[in-house]
Formats: sequence, structure tokens, C-alpha cells
Amino acid sequence: MASSLSSSGATAAYPPSSTASGASSSTASGAPSSTSSYPMPPSAVPTGVAPEGDYTGPLRPQVHFSPPVGFMNDPNGLFRASNGTWHLYYQYNPTALVAGNQHWGHATSEDLYTWENQPIALYPPANVTGSGVFSGSAVLDTDNTSGFFGNLSEGVDPVVAVYTLNTPEKQTQNIAYSTDGGYTFTEYEGNPVIDIGSNQFRDPKVIKYEDHWVMVVAYSVDFAIGIYTSPDLKQWEFASNFSDAGLLGLQYECPGLAQLPVEDSDEKAWVMYLSINPGAPLGGSVGQYFIGDFNGTHFQANDAAARIDGFGADYYAQQSFFGTGDESIALGWASNWKYTNLVPTAEEGWRSTMATPRRNYLTNATRIGYVLVSEPYQIETVRDSSLLEGGAETASVVNTTVEIDLSNSTSGAVYFNLNITVPENASVSESAAITLVMRSSASNETLEAGHYLGGSNAGTTWVNRGNLTGFDHPLFNEKFSLTQVGPGQSLSGIFDRSLFEIFVDGGAFHATSTVFPSEPLDTLEVTTSDLPEGADVQAAVWGLKSTWA
Amino acid sequence: MASSLSSSGATAAYPPSSTASGASSSTASGAPSSTSSYPMPPSAVPTGVAPEGDYTGPLRPQVHFSPPVGFMNDPNGLFRASNGTWHLYYQYNPTALVAGNQHWGHATSEDLYTWENQPIALYPPANVTGSGVFSGSAVLDTDNTSGFFGNLSEGVDPVVAVYTLNTPEKQTQNIAYSTDGGYTFTEYEGNPVIDIGSNQFRDPKVIKYEDHWVMVVAYSVDFAIGIYTSPDLKQWEFASNFSDAGLLGLQYECPGLAQLPVEDSDEKAWVMYLSINPGAPLGGSVGQYFIGDFNGTHFQANDAAARIDGFGADYYAQQSFFGTGDESIALGWASNWKYTNLVPTAEEGWRSTMATPRRNYLTNATRIGYVLVSEPYQIETVRDSSLLEGGAETASVVNTTVEIDLSNSTSGAVYFNLNITVPENASVSESAAITLVMRSSASNETLEAGHYLGGSNAGTTWVNRGNLTGFDHPLFNEKFSLTQVGPGQSLSGIFDRSLFEIFVDGGAFHATSTVFPSEPLDTLEVTTSDLPEGADVQAAVWGLKSTWA
Repeated sequence: MASSLSSSGATAAYPPSSTASGASSSTASGAPSSTSSYPMPPSAVPTGVAPEGDYTGPLRPQVHFSPPVGFMNDPNGLFRASNGTWHLYYQYNPTALVAGNQHWGHATSEDLYTWENQPIALYPPANVTGSGVFSGSAVLDTDNTSGFFGNLSEGVDPVVAVYTLNTPEKQTQNIAYSTDGGYTFTEYEGNPVIDIGSNQFRDPKVIKYEDHWVMVVAYSVDFAIGIYTSPDLKQWEFASNFSDAGLLGLQYECPGLAQLPVEDSDEKAWVMYLSINPGAPLGGSVGQYFIGDFNGTHFQANDAAARIDGFGADYYAQQSFFGTGDESIALGWASNWKYTNLVPTAEEGWRSTMATPRRNYLTNATRIGYVLVSEPYQIETVRDSSLLEGGAETASVVNTTVEIDLSNSTSGAVYFNLNITVPENASVSESAAITLVMRSSASNETLEAGHYLGGSNAGTTWVNRGNLTGFDHPLFNEKFSLTQVGPGQSLSGIFDRSLFEIFVDGGAFHATSTVFPSEPLDTLEVTTSDLPEGADVQAAVWGLKSTWA
Repeated sequence: MASSLSSSGATAAYPPSSTASGASSSTASGAPSSTSSYPMPPSAVPTGVAPEGDYTGPLRPQVHFSPPVGFMNDPNGLFRASNGTWHLYYQYNPTALVAGNQHWGHATSEDLYTWENQPIALYPPANVTGSGVFSGSAVLDTDNTSGFFGNLSEGVDPVVAVYTLNTPEKQTQNIAYSTDGGYTFTEYEGNPVIDIGSNQFRDPKVIKYEDHWVMVVAYSVDFAIGIYTSPDLKQWEFASNFSDAGLLGLQYECPGLAQLPVEDSDEKAWVMYLSINPGAPLGGSVGQYFIGDFNGTHFQANDAAARIDGFGADYYAQQSFFGTGDESIALGWASNWKYTNLVPTAEEGWRSTMATPRRNYLTNATRIGYVLVSEPYQIETVRDSSLLEGGAETASVVNTTVEIDLSNSTSGAVYFNLNITVPENASVSESAAITLVMRSSASNETLEAGHYLGGSNAGTTWVNRGNLTGFDHPLFNEKFSLTQVGPGQSLSGIFDRSLFEIFVDGGAFHATSTVFPSEPLDTLEVTTSDLPEGADVQAAVWGLKSTWA
């Protein structure tokens, strides 16, 4: 299947090679241009058939979702069905390895790690040349406010997808409904449901607030998030704007709104998510969030602070699942527009991965107040046996190096957790540190990460993907770091072939990084140095099951 | 002189080597710890004698200020004397190559590029063990509001320095006055002038607003900038706070307030500068700014946007000169706390450089509104002859490479300017780009920068210092980039041995990067590729005079 796809920049070089034939030009934002003209489907697979993918390639994540073939970007329409099944739709170009010709791909999962590809859910309308089904969300219209679900069979969820229809002229908000629980959709005949005549107006995320629906949607080049309300998902009334806040970049995209619990309290607070592209501090795309209150029509941030969601370069367009009750579960796209069309996974016939699913909540952190914590969601579901010597549950690593053979994980994917104990009032030297090195025994290339415990960089966590040799590009940053208050209590991470994610203190700080080794990384060295008297680092390292086998 | 200094991490490695003896431990902010105990002076040079430095080392900037010996950080007390002389004070540790034991070093210049080292201006009080003279500013008290200058000689400026006295107990705002135009200072006997009992309260910047003095000062760990007013520089009254805005990091430092002209208009607007450390998006330290209005007591930002000042990792603690009339001239520290104590210039007996002086103004940019433009200030003052073949003023570089021999610049320092013309409505391909490569013929290591003109990365400027071999550290980021609206009209830059600065569109976007080649970079290649029909890049490249020779 992959051979039929056009590829751009599979061999990275700068300046990047020209966009391959069949791929569209893109706007500065990386989103497909509204004026480009795509060939219409045939897509890579016939309508109604789930596309097949080869998930055996050395860069293919084994516990993360990646598209069967072609190009993927934002997660869309995330919801959890009443029977517990997770539905993921995603921005999908089934006919090329670069963005363009946007469909909604579809996959389902019982655990958010083991995915089943489903037939493409939404196609660009065949009668509108150059159109694309851009990002959006989905809801369960349990009360049938829309009137679409009068004759629904028992046990079938009433799913409404809300998306942006992108045409050469403009971007409008449209809806489609599904009477088979989210597998096939019928376009609402009254579309569009919101049309303001703009060609920069997109990415509706709809939630239920008490008795009405609420949509947040980006006026991208105006640096504003519109808030609309509706009783029935069809008639939308403008309520308010939240604008000119945080890092502006050049475009606002993919807003989101969720009420999150505050850890160790009965409190809750509202979080407005917002992605910007390009113009992120690390270049390209980044997510950020605002903490405040929402009254059903207006969002008021608690302050004028800008808060970045993750310190890596590859976490974008995070969206929360509809239908998860008091928990907030989210999924983000693990890439960056500035190089997503160039990464070497194209050689395997696909591009882009979703990040590890996260449970999001707030913590009231020392001194800096509410912080969004984003922890891996039930990663233990896919945990395999311990990779420590003799299958030990944990190993103490104190001023020594422990080497772990990753080839004992059949998937090559690994989850580690380091619990750090430093006695109170210990004198911690500048050189007290934890260093992780994942190495290929074939090429000796390395992926590195670490954490400083003392001195002026105490509390700083870092990642270095610059000593891997599978991809090089001037915009592909190599080093990331962030400093938190205090020395840190835990460091955990997931390495999955071409994805590396690190979580500090359970996700209070996190970085998602695409990584492109030329050869599989088959050893992990955990080193601690200059720990003070009485300090301990307890390491646990597990293989992860291959969910695509 | 250098051999008497202690050095930390001259050979970089991670984890970083322990802090050398004689150097203090630092707080998480990188600023010297308020609880550390330094040996008191003797300093490196006797009181009243200008310290001597060796400015011939291969990493020594030739048109930028760096300290004669020892460690430098923030610019302090910047003012322009009535006779036109520029006065630079700076955070200075004359007895070690790492931060600590903070003095105010002093240097003067007639052009901001050619500097004369002066005797150290402010010493930590000998009777307060573990104290330091932290950052602050200076004013010309022309109306003698302070009463310090009753008997001043004709032509001598009435200089008052306002600084933070850091002691193991607390940080207070103190003043000292000079009756010889800024060379020696007398401590005010009524010090401190502001004492709130805090040990995180520092970096006063004082300006004159109509009939009164205004101080902005950081409550560092409260993420607030205090605004105080005074009739006489001695009695200060709290007026307001500006707080919880922009990127918070872990500490606020070095606030500044200036009224800037808006280009091509009669308008002016107020800018609040603010540095944070650590916690910058690129790790460590960063400067940011807010645009708004100031009425003499309160600053009101126009919006809740966060605006970062420069897309490199090495531009911090920018301060504006007092006494420059309608122009706003500023100087920043070209380093980052996360690695400043480790960089290899220690081998030459010094650490840290000031960035190129900037003229700051606002431009009303397409779509994104007011942007702080930071352009090199009168760089032509130190411009030497053209390095283009035959001494040509400019060369057209269209889809070709022009190689320039930098060894024809005796200083090794270079200024280049590329004027970019792309015909309106030209179809610009994804691969249309400008690439700059500075190379060492001895080691083949390179410093690279570039600019994309088309495709999804159009308007993106990048810098890559990762192919230089003189310094490596997990926190020393290698790649930087930023995307602007539109393709860009000019790209200029200054390379000065261990400093590289790039300015897009005259400084609307800029990046300051310390760079550490192992061997001198002696060629520059300017390449353009896939420019569309009718496009042109006019390159000019000049050597810069060695101002320290």
C-alpha cells in the first residue's frame, strides 16, 4: 500500500526537497491551504473498508496509534461510547504522506493502547472541489436534542460530529450524525451550522454545560477563541470571545474547554486549551492552556500568565474525550508542523503518531499555583514483564550505572519509572544527577535524558535526541529542558521506537519527542552520580506489549 | 591574571563538574544564593585601578563588551552622560569565573562598541559578610532632587546608582551617588531606601516620569513587578503592582519600563520588560515584554499576550540607557543561566559577553500588531571594508553560492546584510531558501543559519550552532527558529568569534546565540536555492574593526 503513496522528504536535507506530486501546498500554518486543489478520492482504500497497515517497521510505535498508511495530524471527534469503547477520529490524508486532502480517519480501542482501524468516517464532499474535512469534535446527544436519533436501536450511541468544512472560499462549522454509534455518518442537510464568511475559522470543540451545548472555535488569525451556545447542535448563538492571550504565534488552532479536578481537594477549575502554529518558542507548533472559570457562556482566566503544555516540540492539538464523566482523558498529536511533512517514517508508508493518552488534572503546586498534570492513562494495561536483571520489580541505582537489555522487550517499547528520594536538608552538589541513555548496539547512536538534583540547575529535566542519526533538519530541534520548583520526586518515561515521552512528578511536567534512530535502540543505561548520603533512586523498567501484533 | 581565577567546567561534560573552590553555590535562579558566604575581596585588582584583560583569545569578541577577567552577568546602571559618553556597569565577580561575590564592574565608551575598562564602581560592603551588590540602574539627577549634588563641578553629571544589596538575610533597594560623573560612588547613609523584609526583591530600574522618579522592581518569587514613586530617590512610595503576566518561569527578574516610538507614526507606547529564570521555554533564562500604557503610577498592558524578546537562548536582563532622549537604546546579557558557569571561555580567563547594543522601537506589524524591533545601534561605526570579491559593495546571490574569506577581516568579526526581493504573486516553492554557513577550514566545523521563503515554513529563520565542537552540554540547545508573517525582507547578522546574532527585517525578530568553535570560523558561504523567477538576494558583507586592539 505504501508504495502508492507519494513521499516528500523521506531523506531529510535542507533546504527541504520540493513537495512531491499529489501533495498540496500548505499555508504558513501548516494546515492545508484553503486555495489548493486536491484530486478527489479515490482514497487509498474503498469506502466502508478499514485501511490496512503494516505495523512492523522499525519506526512504528507499538503501543501508540499511528495511521495504517498515509498522513495523520490532529485527533478529532474523541469520545468514549456508553459501552466503554474509545473512538478516535483523526485528520487523515489517505492518499499522500503529507498534509492535504483531509478526511476523518477512524479507529477504536478498548484500552486506548490497542487500536482497531475502522473505515474512514468522513470524506470531503465530492461535489466541492478542493474541500477538506478539517478538525472537530464529537458528542453523544443522549437526550436527542438534535432530533437526529428518534429511531435509534437500543444500546447504540447517538453520535454527532462537529467539524470544519474547509473549501477554497471559506471555513464553516458543519455537523454530521451517526445512527450506528460512530462508524458511518450522515451530513446534516442544514449545514453549515455556523458560517461567518471567514476562511480562518476552525476546529470546533463541543462540550455539554448543564442544559446546553457549548462550542469553542478558533478565529485563527484574529487570535481569538469564539464561544457559541446551542440547545440542539444545529442553532448556534455567539456568546463571547476569549482573545489575545498567551503566546499568540501566527495562528490560533484547536481550542478546548474542560473542567478539571484539583488533586487532593474538592475543587475543580476550568481549563481552556489552545494550540498555536507557527510561532511557538521552540519553533512551529505548541499547545498552551489557561486556568480560570467558565459560567456556560464566558471563560475568565485567573491571570494573564502564559502556560505551555509540555516542554518538547511534539505535542499539539490535544483534545479531551467526550463522555468520560468526572475524569478528563485526552490525546494529542505527537508532531510539529515545521517538520511533520519531512520525517523519515515515510519510508514505512505512514507519517505521525498520537502521543500517549493522558489523564489530565490540576495540582496546586508549590509557589506557582495550579499546574496541569498530564499523566499516562493506565499504562499498566499494556505493561509486560520487568526488564531488570532477574525480573526484579525495582533496582536501587545509587552512584552507579544499571544497564538494561531492551531486546528482551519483543515490541522494543519500554516504560520506566524512577522514584527519587533525597533526604531533607541534604547538601546536594551541582553534579548530582540522573542520566538515561538509550543506545543502539549496532550504530552506537543514543537518545539521552536526564535530571539535575542540585546546584543552579536543580529540578531541571532534559532530553537530547540530537545523537540519533535517522533524521536531521535545521528545524528539528535536538535538546529540550525545563526546570521545576524543587528537586523532583519521580521521572518516568515511555520509549516506543520513534516516540519518547518523559513525565516529571507523574506528569506535572512532560515532554513528547519524536525520535528517529537509524537502528533500534536496544540498551538502556540508568546512571546516578554524586547523590548525597541517604539519597536513593529506585528504578523500575518494563517492556510494553505490542498492541499491533 | 586569568591563572589566578578559579574555573568551573572549562571542559564541558555532563553531569557538570562540581563548582570550583572559591565559587559560591547558586540558587535555582542562577543568581548567587543569598545564604552563601563568599570570601571578601581582595578582588582581582586593587581598588581604584581598572582591571586589565587579555582580549586576544580566539573566543574573545572584538566589537562586544566582555569583562577583562572573571565572570559577568547583567548590565547595570546604564546611562549616557551629558557629554555623550556611554556608561556600562555590570554584575561582576572579579575573583572567580562563576557567578558570586557580585560587584558592579564599569566600562565607558564613545560608540557602544569601543570600550575602556574602568575601576570597579561598587563593592560589596566589607562589613556585611556574604553580601553582594546585585543588579540595578542609574539616573542623572539633573535637578538635584536628591540633594547629593550641591557642590558639583561644572560639566560633571550627577549620577545616582540604585541597586539591590543582597545579604544573607534579605534583599533591599539601596542608592549611592557619584560626584565625579559615575567613576566612584558614595553610599547613601540613609540606606536602604526600600526594605520590605524580603529575600526575593531585586533589580530596581529607575526612570523619570514627568515630575517624579519611578522604580520598577521584581518581587521575584511572587511573579510581580512593584512600581514605586519618589520625588528625591530617597523616599519611595509604593504605587502599584503588575503581576502574573506572561511566561512566569520560576522567578521574575530585571524589569524595565520605557516609552518607545512607533515606527512611521507619531504614536508612542510603553513597554514593560521582564526577564524570567529559570523556566524559559528553551530552558533557563529569557526576556519578554508587554506593551501598554503607563500613567506615572500604573502600567496597563494592552492585552494578555506573552511576547518573547528574541528567539535565541542568550539574551537576558536587557536594560535601557538613561539619558538618551527620544531614542531608546538598550543592552542585554548574551548568556543563559543554565550553562553560563560552564562555557569554555573560562580557558581565556573570562566568562560572558554583552549583546550588540540595540535601538528599540515598535512597529505596527501586519496582523500581529505592535512588535518590539531591536536593531543593532549604529553598527556602521565599527564597519571595516567589504569582504566581497574585489571589495564590491554588494553581490547578487541567485540560486548559487558565494564564498567569502573571513580571514580578510583582521578581527574575525563580520557583519552581513541580505536584502531579499521576491516579486509579488510569485509562486515560491517549499525549497526556496537562503542558507548561511560559517566554516572553519581547520576543523570543518560549521555555524549555520537560514531562512525559508516558501511553503509551510515560509518566513522561518533558523540558527544551528550544533555543528560547532567547542562546547557540548545537555542544556546547551543547538537549534533555534521563529516564523514571522510574510517572507521577510532582510536578514542581517553579526558574527564575533563566540557570539552570533541574527536580525530579521531589521530586528523585528532576532536571536542572540553564544557560539563556541574549536577553531576560528574563516569562511562564510551564502547560498540561495530555488528562488522564483525575478527574485533577488543582494548580499553585503563587511569585516568589523577590532575595538580592543
